Amino acid sequence: MSGDEARERAIADSWRANAGAWTRAVRSGGIASRRQVTDRAIIDVVVDTNPATVLDIGCGEGWLVRALADRGIAARGVDFTEALIGSARRAGGRFDVVSYAELGSWPAKDRFDTAVCNFSLIGERSTRDVFRAVRRLVDAGGCFIVQTLHPVTACGDAPYEDGWHAGSWQGFSDEFTDPAPWYFRTLESWRRLFDDHAMALTATHEPPDPDTGKPVSIIFVAATG
Amino acid sequence: MSGDEARERAIADSWRANAGAWTRAVRSGGIASRRQVTDRAIIDVVVDTNPATVLDIGCGEGWLVRALADRGIAARGVDFTEALIGSARRAGGRFDVVSYAELGSWPAKDRFDTAVCNFSLIGERSTRDVFRAVRRLVDAGGCFIVQTLHPVTACGDAPYEDGWHAGSWQGFSDEFTDPAPWYFRTLESWRRLFDDHAMALTATHEPPDPDTGKPVSIIFVAATG
Repeated sequence: MSGDEARERAIADSWRANAGAWTRAVRSGGIASRRQVTDRAIIDVVVDTNPATVLDIGCGEGWLVRALADRGIAARGVDFTEALIGSARRAGGRFDVVSYAELGSWPAKDRFDTAVCNFSLIGERSTRDVFRAVRRLVDAGGCFIVQTLHPVTACGDAPYEDGWHAGSWQGFSDEFTDPAPWYFRTLESWRRLFDDHAMALTATHEPPDPDTGKPVSIIFVAATG
Repeated sequence: MSGDEARERAIADSWRANAGAWTRAVRSGGIASRRQVTDRAIIDVVVDTNPATVLDIGCGEGWLVRALADRGIAARGVDFTEALIGSARRAGGRFDVVSYAELGSWPAKDRFDTAVCNFSLIGERSTRDVFRAVRRLVDAGGCFIVQTLHPVTACGDAPYEDGWHAGSWQGFSDEFTDPAPWYFRTLESWRRLFDDHAMALTATHEPPDPDTGKPVSIIFVAATG
């Protein structure tokens, strides 16, 4: 197994190990940046694309699927972590266990108006798997929306270049273990991912932290084919 | 005169005051980031759009016009600082004194394949003047290329939001005086400028500092109408 694949595996293992803690953190509003900024930001951007159907890729315990359903949107979630999909189903909604590698051949039956990845593109190869799959799963004229860490705030002291960074659960409760590595991409690299998969970026959003004024995240909105 | 217009005036005054020092600094290779990174980066990006004709807006003492001419491209420069255009003409090439406000009605006769602003969009209203003018000055199917400070490195400790920042000649020689304010724009704000003027961003480049690995600048490439 190459270093890259070992890291992809570490990401999957970390989510399995932390599925319970994650579900509790999300549902108790325990992640300040999400509660204060990024949850509302992703909902607003998705709703703004006016979709009838949405696929939430890397949906975790499913809060976004339910938030969109509350707004009359038929949303469906997929995630590779069985325990998270179990939690998601118990809270209500349509969810499936699908890995990013499997997404390319996942028999969804219907195509979606919009696909969304909310902080769920963490690896390198696995992220490219998702981009390839989205081309098949989203209608021509649809949207692909990605919220991720903002290079301005996520780069830290590391060189500003694509590469694996050590993970951390800093700011999370002691329940969390086994932080996984994550793959940093520059803005140019994110843009190239969309370009390489024949999607055209149509907007970016940079929701600010109300305290520091720095962007908490960046949201890319792209038109598919 | 509003605060904004006073700042636009301060920018123009600063260039008038520093035209000689600027010409000497550029021509002696005295600005390390330009010598090491950004000069080559902007040449490569402009040449890559394969233009027959280029308009360099805010050309200063004209080095880029001459560098493009060396590569067989018919380039022409405009700048609002008479002393810089004087220096530019003496070194050879086709240059005109045109303010950004005048650019919208400047009788260029011919349209250009590509317009470029190399660190020359410094103000707020004056930047919008340039975007409006480019729509008129560049052929449909042409390119508008902007190199500017990168938000990752230029934001510093200030809030990440559009607004005026105090200027500085830090890193320049003692010859330089009267630093002018400059208008910081977020990535989202730059993108909106292109969008608002019916130009589609087709690429971004983030040339890195060879020492720190951080991007020195960002280069936006947009397709016109």
